[in-house]
Amino acid sequence: MAKDGIGDEFDLIARYFAPLAAGAAGALGLTDDAAIVDIPDGMRLVAAADALVAGIHFLADDPPGDIARKIVRVNLSDLAAMGARPIGLLLTAVFPRDVTAQWLEEFAGGLKTDIEAFESPLIGGDTVAGDGPLTLSLTALGAVPSDKVLTRAGAKVGDGIYVSGTVGDGALGLLATGGGLAGLGPEGRDYLVGRYRIPSPRLDLGIRLLDVAHAAVDLSDGLLADLGHVCDCSGTGARVRIDSLPLSPAARASVTADPELWPKILGGGDDYELLFTVPDDKETAVSEIAAALGLDLSRIGVVTANAGVEVEDAEEMGLNLSDLGYRHFS
Amino acid sequence: MAKDGIGDEFDLIARYFAPLAAGAAGALGLTDDAAIVDIPDGMRLVAAADALVAGIHFLADDPPGDIARKIVRVNLSDLAAMGARPIGLLLTAVFPRDVTAQWLEEFAGGLKTDIEAFESPLIGGDTVAGDGPLTLSLTALGAVPSDKVLTRAGAKVGDGIYVSGTVGDGALGLLATGGGLAGLGPEGRDYLVGRYRIPSPRLDLGIRLLDVAHAAVDLSDGLLADLGHVCDCSGTGARVRIDSLPLSPAARASVTADPELWPKILGGGDDYELLFTVPDDKETAVSEIAAALGLDLSRIGVVTANAGVEVEDAEEMGLNLSDLGYRHFS
Repeated sequence: MAKDGIGDEFDLIARYFAPLAAGAAGALGLTDDAAIVDIPDGMRLVAAADALVAGIHFLADDPPGDIARKIVRVNLSDLAAMGARPIGLLLTAVFPRDVTAQWLEEFAGGLKTDIEAFESPLIGGDTVAGDGPLTLSLTALGAVPSDKVLTRAGAKVGDGIYVSGTVGDGALGLLATGGGLAGLGPEGRDYLVGRYRIPSPRLDLGIRLLDVAHAAVDLSDGLLADLGHVCDCSGTGARVRIDSLPLSPAARASVTADPELWPKILGGGDDYELLFTVPDDKETAVSEIAAALGLDLSRIGVVTANAGVEVEDAEEMGLNLSDLGYRHFS
Repeated sequence: MAKDGIGDEFDLIARYFAPLAAGAAGALGLTDDAAIVDIPDGMRLVAAADALVAGIHFLADDPPGDIARKIVRVNLSDLAAMGARPIGLLLTAVFPRDVTAQWLEEFAGGLKTDIEAFESPLIGGDTVAGDGPLTLSLTALGAVPSDKVLTRAGAKVGDGIYVSGTVGDGALGLLATGGGLAGLGPEGRDYLVGRYRIPSPRLDLGIRLLDVAHAAVDLSDGLLADLGHVCDCSGTGARVRIDSLPLSPAARASVTADPELWPKILGGGDDYELLFTVPDDKETAVSEIAAALGLDLSRIGVVTANAGVEVEDAEEMGLNLSDLGYRHFS
């Protein structure tokens, strides 16, 4: 990675990335071929990998710190959906050849913020200077108790379907990065853009759901698509009431002013909230978790025996669900 | 990943990649957010990540199966250097938008070959269709006994320095992909290109070295650079005799015909052999391992107290080592 002002790959790792491994003995200061990690007794390893590409998953001129934080959070969200606690991260980055020292500093600064916030050190990776767009790939490692399991499979007919936080903010936030949205002032726009750029992985929620939920998924592909994944993996269907979806004030204002935004809320993705299913006798536990975490957990529907996902009240709203890029609707 | 003939991301994963997770229960058929992996009692996790980009680490028109096998082998080589046994792989792939079904089939075929050969199933990952060059990132997970450790650090003054197999083939093979090399017929050229395209991770050797070697590294950056890493991490120096380097017949013929190729052999990298250091009283064990594995293990020098790497006989050969991209030479 020879580059005036940046130095070669070793300089770059030493200057910007090795400090992010501080405190993780097994990262070996990022000087070795691989990291060595102890998985505590009674725990199993959970591993998730995601790639983010400039122009697809973020904009090339997004703030570098936000880009770094997004890839960390997107991957930690995958751990959250399985109830895992983070152990460490491996990052491979293909930087454009004209990347500047200032850009790298801001990128490393964003990484540092979230590595500390989520107690998930950088334990390895690779850097390359390439001709294509900035391309990041992150593997998040976590641990989950060996005697507990939370996956997309396991939903049972009759389970209540819940989501954390609010849905649709990510997709509307992406739209808002390109300009104004109907019904929104600058404050609402900033809120949605922030939700798109810096999602909140629900790690504490995931860990608590290990004892409560039958199945969970994080909302990355879109509400209906991700619920469809749960149904496919569980051999069930689902029925969702569109008027029960928890919307932020900004999303509510937008979709009220422009009902054609509803498909974005149902199909847009990028929320990184958790969707999970819970048997009747655990609904009290859900309320207790919501209170303990100070996080809204809203019941949006029920797991059914019919294949596919039904959305109640969609027709009255004139929604054509087949336009949502959602393959599982029957 | 909507694409005529290829299908979307879910189709692509189901058709080409999910079969590669067969037999790995924790991969959850690649349908979930993350993989769940049991690390056996008494073992620690080892994790390594590398990125390979078309035009930098391989040629865009290399056979797709060879590209797949190379990224698997490069990562497994990192595990080998730490004496780890593979557990599984997470692959993120940014494919060009015009990727064809035939290309993907050949790519997945190459993956399958090596996943089976090295008993290292695909347990997770991500696929994206992008505008840039084919960009692959692989995280290899492995396990090593908790009471043993093999890293770049640990070399002791007086240790013998050994390399497995032959050195310089990778760098000469890369040169040979662009045309003929002096002194070589088509057979020798094919041998070197094959060594460049499909390196051999020395996993069995690494596991045996856990009881024998003080330090190890795989030869990816180049013989002198990687030996320099060992010296830096161990707080030692090294002295290497250039006439003791093990060369393949093809590399020997090339460098004899054109001595200006010597810098490629010392500095070129891409061999993915192991370099390791061994105390005097373990030299017999090295011979026994060589015999057991049917793999040449050659003594090329000695660990010294002086910082830096000395190459004996380099001056008589007119080599200017400062041209080798090697930063550690004093």
